Amino acid sequence: MQPIEVCFSPALYKLYHSDDKCVVIIDILRATTSICAAIAAGAEKILPVASVDDALKAKQQGYIVAAEREGKVLDFADFGNSPDLFTPERVKNKTIAYSTTNGTQAIDMAKQAKLLLIASFINLSAINQHLASHPQPLLLFCSGWKNKFNLEDTLCAGAIAYALIQSGKYFTQCDSTLASIDLWLLAKDNLSSYLEKASHRHRLKNIVDDSVIKYCLSLNLTNVIPYYQDGFIKNMI
Amino acid sequence: MQPIEVCFSPALYKLYHSDDKCVVIIDILRATTSICAAIAAGAEKILPVASVDDALKAKQQGYIVAAEREGKVLDFADFGNSPDLFTPERVKNKTIAYSTTNGTQAIDMAKQAKLLLIASFINLSAINQHLASHPQPLLLFCSGWKNKFNLEDTLCAGAIAYALIQSGKYFTQCDSTLASIDLWLLAKDNLSSYLEKASHRHRLKNIVDDSVIKYCLSLNLTNVIPYYQDGFIKNMI
Repeated sequence: MQPIEVCFSPALYKLYHSDDKCVVIIDILRATTSICAAIAAGAEKILPVASVDDALKAKQQGYIVAAEREGKVLDFADFGNSPDLFTPERVKNKTIAYSTTNGTQAIDMAKQAKLLLIASFINLSAINQHLASHPQPLLLFCSGWKNKFNLEDTLCAGAIAYALIQSGKYFTQCDSTLASIDLWLLAKDNLSSYLEKASHRHRLKNIVDDSVIKYCLSLNLTNVIPYYQDGFIKNMI
Repeated sequence: MQPIEVCFSPALYKLYHSDDKCVVIIDILRATTSICAAIAAGAEKILPVASVDDALKAKQQGYIVAAEREGKVLDFADFGNSPDLFTPERVKNKTIAYSTTNGTQAIDMAKQAKLLLIASFINLSAINQHLASHPQPLLLFCSGWKNKFNLEDTLCAGAIAYALIQSGKYFTQCDSTLASIDLWLLAKDNLSSYLEKASHRHRLKNIVDDSVIKYCLSLNLTNVIPYYQDGFIKNMI
């Protein structure tokens, strides 16, 4: 039986950090959803860049750059952060530099982890099946919003933790994991309606279409298992 | 309508900090419960001390000292942190210096707040009635365990937030407040059984009696409203 923990914010990551854990990054609205969508659309790899400066450098080096801050496309970027922008026409067989407000910072913080996976609702079952088949100490790392707790990342962490504990291969003694599971069980039958109240969703409603939010809250649209290695995110399968 | 936020950890406090908020400190197991119990038992005031060094200085200055670290009484202290130790015989009309692993640090961090209140399950209604009668921007500050999220403080925050929003005088746009409320609504009909799974409760079980934990999870045993001013905690009423 392997332990599961959930970290609610990048500001808490150092309390959970340990190089022998598998870290699963979650940023539902929208970084990890978009990374899964990009890989599913055929992108060869993703170069996650944490700062705006690094995104600009990537652009100067010739990368296609997808980058926003607080929901707005950076002026030098090719396109923004929403998953629907990562079409096969734009990304197939290409390397995309990607930078966001929260998610790519979390990836940067955790890049020393033994294994770093990218999870979202759209690849939930694929992530759960992989982790159930390869039990290992697990940290589900919610990217949050500017270091604050958010509901949508927490629900995804709860969905993963619940499935893995049900598999019999994992256990938890971590209060944030227990809370995430209970919130997931409350929300799972109507995720979109439950998340109507979430603050970040309201924030994004002014910036992105409802259809993007609906996509980000859809379960199991792809079987990709994006993982980070040597500076890039690729598909494991 | 006044806003409510919940901060899950001292490590996140700077994200919520603002001098114009009323900050409500919550450390159910056991700091804020014990402060309420001490005031209810007739203590004139409490001197919260954050560090072990400051607790030792208070002892040298002649204060009665109640102090633990990780559930163990400090060797120079007069007694420990459990609420049952604050008997009228020990504390009536006296000033008690009090230091704990989590709660007194949170008090220290928030001492610049416009108003700083001490809440627990044992004075829940008194706190709720006061805040419903005096609506003001509110931050419910969970002390956590060594900067990690914990369930018992979160449930108490949820109980306060739920009652105040029901009063019609408050609202929230804060995801951690929404999560706290949902967890409270799940747990409220059997708090003790719900918290059986909490990690800190299991940790404390090896150190303190079940009766102490049961006391800390009891609702509305006293009407005291402890508040911090000029270095000391006193009763508002």
